[in-house]
Amino acid sequence: MNISTFIGCDNSYEESELTLFGIPFDGTTSFRPGTRFAMQAIRPDSYGLETYSPYLDRDLEDIAVHDSGDLDLPLGNTEKTMNEILLFTRGLVDDGKKFVMVGGEHLVSYPTIKAAFEKYPDLHVIHIDAHTDLREDYMGEKLSHASVIKRCHEFLGDGRIFQFGIRSGLKEEFEWAKDHTYMERFSIETLPEIVKKLENLPIYITIDLDVLDPGTFPGTGTPEPGGITYKELLAGLKVLDDLNHVVGADVVELSPPYDPTGASTAIACKTLRELLLIVGK
Amino acid sequence: MNISTFIGCDNSYEESELTLFGIPFDGTTSFRPGTRFAMQAIRPDSYGLETYSPYLDRDLEDIAVHDSGDLDLPLGNTEKTMNEILLFTRGLVDDGKKFVMVGGEHLVSYPTIKAAFEKYPDLHVIHIDAHTDLREDYMGEKLSHASVIKRCHEFLGDGRIFQFGIRSGLKEEFEWAKDHTYMERFSIETLPEIVKKLENLPIYITIDLDVLDPGTFPGTGTPEPGGITYKELLAGLKVLDDLNHVVGADVVELSPPYDPTGASTAIACKTLRELLLIVGK
Amino acid sequence: MNISTFIGCDNSYEESELTLFGIPFDGTTSFRPGTRFAMQAIRPDSYGLETYSPYLDRDLEDIAVHDSGDLDLPLGNTEKTMNEILLFTRGLVDDGKKFVMVGGEHLVSYPTIKAAFEKYPDLHVIHIDAHTDLREDYMGEKLSHASVIKRCHEFLGDGRIFQFGIRSGLKEEFEWAKDHTYMERFSIETLPEIVKKLENLPIYITIDLDVLDPGTFPGTGTPEPGGITYKELLAGLKVLDDLNHVVGADVVELSPPYDPTGASTAIACKTLRELLLIVGK
Amino acid sequence: MNISTFIGCDNSYEESELTLFGIPFDGTTSFRPGTRFAMQAIRPDSYGLETYSPYLDRDLEDIAVHDSGDLDLPLGNTEKTMNEILLFTRGLVDDGKKFVMVGGEHLVSYPTIKAAFEKYPDLHVIHIDAHTDLREDYMGEKLSHASVIKRCHEFLGDGRIFQFGIRSGLKEEFEWAKDHTYMERFSIETLPEIVKKLENLPIYITIDLDVLDPGTFPGTGTPEPGGITYKELLAGLKVLDDLNHVVGADVVELSPPYDPTGASTAIACKTLRELLLIVGK
Amino acid sequence: MNISTFIGCDNSYEESELTLFGIPFDGTTSFRPGTRFAMQAIRPDSYGLETYSPYLDRDLEDIAVHDSGDLDLPLGNTEKTMNEILLFTRGLVDDGKKFVMVGGEHLVSYPTIKAAFEKYPDLHVIHIDAHTDLREDYMGEKLSHASVIKRCHEFLGDGRIFQFGIRSGLKEEFEWAKDHTYMERFSIETLPEIVKKLENLPIYITIDLDVLDPGTFPGTGTPEPGGITYKELLAGLKVLDDLNHVVGADVVELSPPYDPTGASTAIACKTLRELLLIVGK
Amino acid sequence: MNISTFIGCDNSYEESELTLFGIPFDGTTSFRPGTRFAMQAIRPDSYGLETYSPYLDRDLEDIAVHDSGDLDLPLGNTEKTMNEILLFTRGLVDDGKKFVMVGGEHLVSYPTIKAAFEKYPDLHVIHIDAHTDLREDYMGEKLSHASVIKRCHEFLGDGRIFQFGIRSGLKEEFEWAKDHTYMERFSIETLPEIVKKLENLPIYITIDLDVLDPGTFPGTGTPEPGGITYKELLAGLKVLDDLNHVVGADVVELSPPYDPTGASTAIACKTLRELLLIVGK
Repeated sequence: MNISTFIGCDNSYEESELTLFGIPFDGTTSFRPGTRFAMQAIRPDSYGLETYSPYLDRDLEDIAVHDSGDLDLPLGNTEKTMNEILLFTRGLVDDGKKFVMVGGEHLVSYPTIKAAFEKYPDLHVIHIDAHTDLREDYMGEKLSHASVIKRCHEFLGDGRIFQFGIRSGLKEEFEWAKDHTYMERFSIETLPEIVKKLENLPIYITIDLDVLDPGTFPGTGTPEPGGITYKELLAGLKVLDDLNHVVGADVVELSPPYDPTGASTAIACKTLRELLLIVGK
Repeated sequence: MNISTFIGCDNSYEESELTLFGIPFDGTTSFRPGTRFAMQAIRPDSYGLETYSPYLDRDLEDIAVHDSGDLDLPLGNTEKTMNEILLFTRGLVDDGKKFVMVGGEHLVSYPTIKAAFEKYPDLHVIHIDAHTDLREDYMGEKLSHASVIKRCHEFLGDGRIFQFGIRSGLKEEFEWAKDHTYMERFSIETLPEIVKKLENLPIYITIDLDVLDPGTFPGTGTPEPGGITYKELLAGLKVLDDLNHVVGADVVELSPPYDPTGASTAIACKTLRELLLIVGK
Repeated sequence: MNISTFIGCDNSYEESELTLFGIPFDGTTSFRPGTRFAMQAIRPDSYGLETYSPYLDRDLEDIAVHDSGDLDLPLGNTEKTMNEILLFTRGLVDDGKKFVMVGGEHLVSYPTIKAAFEKYPDLHVIHIDAHTDLREDYMGEKLSHASVIKRCHEFLGDGRIFQFGIRSGLKEEFEWAKDHTYMERFSIETLPEIVKKLENLPIYITIDLDVLDPGTFPGTGTPEPGGITYKELLAGLKVLDDLNHVVGADVVELSPPYDPTGASTAIACKTLRELLLIVGK
Repeated sequence: MNISTFIGCDNSYEESELTLFGIPFDGTTSFRPGTRFAMQAIRPDSYGLETYSPYLDRDLEDIAVHDSGDLDLPLGNTEKTMNEILLFTRGLVDDGKKFVMVGGEHLVSYPTIKAAFEKYPDLHVIHIDAHTDLREDYMGEKLSHASVIKRCHEFLGDGRIFQFGIRSGLKEEFEWAKDHTYMERFSIETLPEIVKKLENLPIYITIDLDVLDPGTFPGTGTPEPGGITYKELLAGLKVLDDLNHVVGADVVELSPPYDPTGASTAIACKTLRELLLIVGK
Repeated sequence: MNISTFIGCDNSYEESELTLFGIPFDGTTSFRPGTRFAMQAIRPDSYGLETYSPYLDRDLEDIAVHDSGDLDLPLGNTEKTMNEILLFTRGLVDDGKKFVMVGGEHLVSYPTIKAAFEKYPDLHVIHIDAHTDLREDYMGEKLSHASVIKRCHEFLGDGRIFQFGIRSGLKEEFEWAKDHTYMERFSIETLPEIVKKLENLPIYITIDLDVLDPGTFPGTGTPEPGGITYKELLAGLKVLDDLNHVVGADVVELSPPYDPTGASTAIACKTLRELLLIVGK
Repeated sequence: MNISTFIGCDNSYEESELTLFGIPFDGTTSFRPGTRFAMQAIRPDSYGLETYSPYLDRDLEDIAVHDSGDLDLPLGNTEKTMNEILLFTRGLVDDGKKFVMVGGEHLVSYPTIKAAFEKYPDLHVIHIDAHTDLREDYMGEKLSHASVIKRCHEFLGDGRIFQFGIRSGLKEEFEWAKDHTYMERFSIETLPEIVKKLENLPIYITIDLDVLDPGTFPGTGTPEPGGITYKELLAGLKVLDDLNHVVGADVVELSPPYDPTGASTAIACKTLRELLLIVGK
């Protein structure tokens, strides 16, 4: 009788090609913590949704997804935590599963992208976010939410990272990006042409929900005004559905303590449903 | 000295052609209750508004509206409640009044539409909502917020229901609608052409405020991301002002417990002002 | 990896003598709804507790409890709902299980007490509450949170109900109680002497958490100032531990929407831990 | 059908000996405003109470009280506002009415006490509060919530003011009080002996709810930890019921924006019910 | 180590051409107070921003701004308060400083605009707001947030005030504006052409943040649905950057008590950063 | 004009014997983070207090305290953080200062107690808390809020730690305490006799505010029902004033995100004022 999985994801690990899991970690969050509670809010609230998407005209009930719960992590030791995430995700990939991960803060994408890269050396990353996330370090710490894409670049290299919606960062981050990543500032309008180019490559999609305008999505640690609308993100998701080889994806930075109305959690749920349909097709 | 009516609605029943009333019922709400408190929030907050609408260039002070308060209803017995609403609304209609009702959950539109239909057998319904509301039943209950339009179809029949903004439902509801109602999905862009067709027919307008994007309007029980903006709804209201024979209308699903900032209540107030000006002209 | 049961209650049904379950029903709540969300808040927050009670010097890990989740109930049809609860609880009792139930509103104790009574015709009820709950009906409805103890009296009869902490009701309810129940007003000081008398009889304990002062426990639908402190309730629980034959118990009326700090949920969790230790010993 | 008066106070002005009214003014509040909303919260929430008090064993239905609503006041001009309150209250007193006023900030007691004093030159004031309220001025303003009792002393003189529960003020205020008022610090234990002395004199009772501990009553502008419990205040109210000539009373400083759970509003409601029963007997 | 200034504004008064200050006054607010807390929320939350603006491609670190804190004002005496603000601002202007002020309610712009006008008799005012603010008085008070632009017109005269985004007011205010100000209703689309005309004149910019839609910006006292988006305001700010002689500016009406998520405060911070870059260039 | 220090603590470092500082760290918090924001809430809200304490009959204005702000710390690297705190506190101690620290989570007391111990090898610690804090480690991490007193015991040794108010922990922690610390469970009644014994020894006082009942003090990460009242803590503080050689103290675990009413922050402010008066005398 318990509600314990995301809606429509009550299949066993074995029978599922696609695994959903949460990482309740916000240990390097510098401003307002709380993303550790994301999955705890998303699971019960997902029952306010339907499993059927009129956008993609497909139903979650028609694919087999396993919700494997949340990783159990100590707080206060970032390096050890990153390692545990890497081991877990590597296990999934080795078992031939595709996966969708829900953060937590954005740093948790570092080990999951790494695990995908280990299997798919040709991995390309689509990064939708308000922030550049390209700092070399944050107050001396290299493992930081503000550095996650920089860390991924260290193994991915140039030409593999495609950034959309970016509207905040240090001046030097914007400068650095010119030579090393593809970056669209302020909006995600060029997503269709990039998706066209990448359509048959192995892809990892990482969506930091703070790409949305805080009016639409206040429930996040570092709200950055001037973002895209949810209709624009929905249109972007429909574009991403043209990709033929998505191997992993994530939705990060929902922070339920800053979502008193549940509207941001509803957005995370709906984005997750669409993403599961895209990755799991 | 008391604030006890909606702004500008302090006329007596006798001298008014238009009656406003509230139905504080949320008894079948499956997800998050609270719409019972809508009118209790709307009345005092309406004094943050002006009575003059620069959109319609008309003033509430220039028409006679009676705010007759809220129905006094027991909770826990849906059938009896529906009957009491029907009797009350039938009384208004029999007295020759037009009315605007404020919910409560959407199920309360069922008896008010029925009362209007009894007097105007040619009644057509304009239904603006995020959800199809076309389920045959919800967990075995036929009287449910998720079934309200289906229940109305039983007496209205095909070709009488015009749905706008719909973006959530079971696959079979969307299928059923193809044969029995007019449905515009995701937006309300075709409202002008439909209004043109219906302009001289007896019309009931039912607005479920969750048609709005939850970023704009979080204060509702079942937020469904990807909705229309308030500017779009305002434009729609201006279109509805072209109708010549609106006999009743309602605004439902404001849930003040999910409106910590009062912004959703402000939207309900403004929508109600415009609707009173439209129905009462 | 999922958190899905109350802390320390992850045993199977078969191996457990004691079953925990939730009833997410608040359908007759006349003032402020929300108790349907109680178990949804209690389960994850129980991990802020320890399984060891220094009050009883016993540990939840040392008894076998099964958390069977929440009943899946339609809203809007109270009679049918009461029946489903009765059937479920009767099933537990027939399987020889003791149980602890978590509401929901207080009306849900009616069918669970009835199920216990069917098996133990000599059942006595200890009722800790701010309200008399002895109305004949509420606005014509006999199945109401305000009438639950009156309904139980219909099958239990005189001399079986022991009320503590009562401080609100109609004058006639207080009058009626004089002849039909034992009632201590305002406090629970006489609990030890009553427990002494009842120690070997079959007992059902029903705790409406609004017996606590709203300063201590604001998270409930009908806060009634002037209640007991949590230290007093803890002392009362220690007294209840002297009972030798508790067959069922419940904790009702936590309403998470009115608990923005989580302090009331923490109280419900701790009360539930102690009650499980008492019933399960 | 409207809920527009405090529970049980729906008698006409003419037939009532006792008038209830609100003053939604918080214009000199230096820390956190919001007491202007007190009556707007109290009226609807009073329906969570019963009219019967088991403490006094009397029922509000048995006395005739008129709720005359809230004064309509401009904000930003304190002197003019004080004058309007004085005129209104003087009108009541001249009509031979007793009254209970609900603030607003404490400064509004100044004109209401003055109006009572004009009629009863022998007036004595019982002042229950966390704060001395004896400043000569606050940042140069003599009409301030922090000076209200000092202002009253100017016309009442020595030996007329009895202060209870005081636990915050400037050192010089505590010094000044030694010569001019009766002051019990930290608690209200000496209330019975003072009431005994004053029992046949004309009395005004002013209760600043921040006398309560903020744990019990957080919903106020200047929470001062270490206050009395609500059970202690209830006991105090029962003592005040021994007074034979209470001509006016007030309850001030409920601030609903700091009462997210409604527990403080419930306390204000219950205190008001008891006070109406005391003044109106 | 303290965070005490707005981000990047830690220069001394002497070395800065531009001064930032706050006015924590909401004394005439008729609906919901709280703007007094704006700067108290803005300063710490500004550290969630970067100092670099990718919109203007300039960095706050590259200009010298002094944050001189908040004025220390008594509450309850509006006239005296207005005078103190005038004296303070006149001091800045006399020292040759440009300034950006943060309210507080909109009335505080009256003395700051006056101080600017005294130095620049040819001053023109760009007023971005949801409300006309052109009332002659509010309940008899001439110094009111609803009258601030009317008061400014008294010394500025016709042809000097340019209003954008206006969507609420009395009918007579809209009528009056036709002859005395430039007013664009509902949007700010004509800003570029007006800025073109005014580009070399001395300009004061006053931004009432309630011009934004309450979905985007709920954290204000009088939310008025149907406003502009933050992207539109950002575009407007970029247009204002073409002005060559901005002598002062303000951002008013953020009310943190109505901003539980911090999203409105984030908007105020970002608007303030852009405005500092515009005025300080 | 800025409010930037705790009330009455605006003296320079050099002229002060006593230094106040904050540590905004909650990096190992396992349940609900947010204590990093404590000082950010305490400083402005301290202006709701007076500097004069009627309990100790002393005034903060009469002693010289320097508020040196908050440490600037990276998040995610606990070991480095502990080291930076140790270095900072050691600097204070070496300069001959006494200090009061405000957390942050309880782990931050580990380095501050260590710094005090380095100077005063005979240091004794008075520990007031709901939790034992005596775990060997938490999920493998030795630097954890749940282990802080255990870590201190490693250098302090047996007979130096005096624990009061403890009501939660593992069974083995309670067992371990029997041989290594003094522990009073559930209350702080034995504080006077212990203080008598310790009155001339060098003392560090660490107050975890969750020792208070969550009804009184909900604003903390791990609320543990059944705690002491604030009046009891105030009485305890008065007892602590008899100590003659307090060298350092702290107040930890206020979590403003769980304090929507500000009542918990008010308690932290008042406790801090009393503690400054005690340490600074």
